[in-house]
Amino acid sequence: MRLQYHRNIPDRPPVDDIRIADVFEYDEIAPAMVGVDAVVNLEADSSTTADWASVRDRNIIGTFNVFESARLAGVNKVVFASTNHVMGMYDRDRQWPIYNHQPVRPDSLYGVSKAFGEALARHYADRYGMSLICLRIGWFLERPVDEIGLWMWLSHRDGAQAVARAIESSLQFGVFYTLSRNTRRHWDLTETIEKLGYRPEDDSEVFAREILGDAAEERLWPK
Amino acid sequence: MRLQYHRNIPDRPPVDDIRIADVFEYDEIAPAMVGVDAVVNLEADSSTTADWASVRDRNIIGTFNVFESARLAGVNKVVFASTNHVMGMYDRDRQWPIYNHQPVRPDSLYGVSKAFGEALARHYADRYGMSLICLRIGWFLERPVDEIGLWMWLSHRDGAQAVARAIESSLQFGVFYTLSRNTRRHWDLTETIEKLGYRPEDDSEVFAREILGDAAEERLWPK
Repeated sequence: MRLQYHRNIPDRPPVDDIRIADVFEYDEIAPAMVGVDAVVNLEADSSTTADWASVRDRNIIGTFNVFESARLAGVNKVVFASTNHVMGMYDRDRQWPIYNHQPVRPDSLYGVSKAFGEALARHYADRYGMSLICLRIGWFLERPVDEIGLWMWLSHRDGAQAVARAIESSLQFGVFYTLSRNTRRHWDLTETIEKLGYRPEDDSEVFAREILGDAAEERLWPK
Repeated sequence: MRLQYHRNIPDRPPVDDIRIADVFEYDEIAPAMVGVDAVVNLEADSSTTADWASVRDRNIIGTFNVFESARLAGVNKVVFASTNHVMGMYDRDRQWPIYNHQPVRPDSLYGVSKAFGEALARHYADRYGMSLICLRIGWFLERPVDEIGLWMWLSHRDGAQAVARAIESSLQFGVFYTLSRNTRRHWDLTETIEKLGYRPEDDSEVFAREILGDAAEERLWPK
C-alpha cells in the first residue's frame, strides 16, 4: 500500500494501489499508513498567498496527521516536502548565499507552515527515533520560465533523485535545500550533496539565454 | 485598554481595565486590540505533555489570532512568550551551552508550537514591519525547587524586567533566552544582555545548598 501523489511527472512508475484521502481528516489518512515503509509527504497548499484557514487545515493540521499516523503505524521514514519559502525573506533581501542552518525567515503563511513542519519533524525524529528528512524544494517544473526559475529550478529527475536519496538515507533528521545544480543558485547545496548523497544532473543555465536574452551573460559576468 | 494575564505575580500594578477573552476565538480577541500600544502574549498550554488538540487550538491558532488581530488593529509591538522547550532536546542531550541561533529541537508538542510562534513572529516582523520580541522563558517561579530549577529559574523581577526591555526595544525581531543570572545556567544570555539591554539581578545559586545539600559544591567544582 502506498500513498502517492502525481502531477506532471513523466514516466510514472507502475503503481498498484492508489488511494485518495484528505490529510485534514486523520481517520482518512491513518488506514493508508499500515504496512508502509516510507511516506513522502508532498501535500500542501503551496501558494505564498494562501490564507490562514487553508494553511492551518492542510499544512499544519495535515502535516501533524501524516506524521502522527505514520508514527502510530510504525512507519520509520517520512520525507517531508518543505520549501525555499521558509527562508524567502533572505531571498527578498538578496542576502545570499543562504545556508540550511540559518534562522528561519518565512515570506508567507505558507513558509511559516513549513517551518512548523520542519520543527515537528525534528521533534518526531528526536523523540521517537523515526527518520524524517525535510527537503526545501525549489521550483519543481519541467523547465524554468523566468529569472527566478533560473535560480530555483528543480528538474524532475533531480527531484526524484533527491526523494530517493532521502528515503534511503540513514540520517535521523536533516533539512536540505533541494534544487538542480543551477549556475545561478543562491542556496547552499553542500549538505544536500555531502550528507544526503544528492548528485544533481541538471543546470538551468541551458535556458538562460532563451529567458534573459543578452542579459544572460551580463548577470554572470558583471562589468 | 490592556490585555493582561495574572498568576502568582506579587505587587500587581493597578489595572484599570481587565477583559477576559479566549485566544482561540478570533472575534473575542480582536476588540481588545483596539488602541493598544503593546501586546504581551503569555497565553498557552505550557505543559510538555499537552496533547495536539490543546496545542493546536490554544498555542497555534491562538497565537495566530493574537498576532493577526494586533496587526489589523495597528499594534506595533508584540512580546511573545516562547520557551526553553523549543530547544529542550539539547538539554536532554546535555549539549550545552545552547545559543539562540541554533536550529530548533523541540522536546514536546508544546515546544513545537512555540517554534511555530517564533517563525510566525519573524514573518510578521519581516512582512509588516511590526516589532515582535520572542522571550524563551525559563522557569518563572517564586523560587527554584529542584536542580533543573537551579538552571532555569527566572525570578519574578527579572521576568518583569525582560518584558519591559522587550516592550521598549526598537528591534524589529529577536529571540532571546530569558532566565535569571543563574550560576548553573546552560543557555547563553549574551544577546539578551547586549541586544535587549536585560540586566538580571537574581541568581538561583543562593538556593543551591538548600536544594542539593553537599552536592551543591561538587556540581560547580568537579574533582
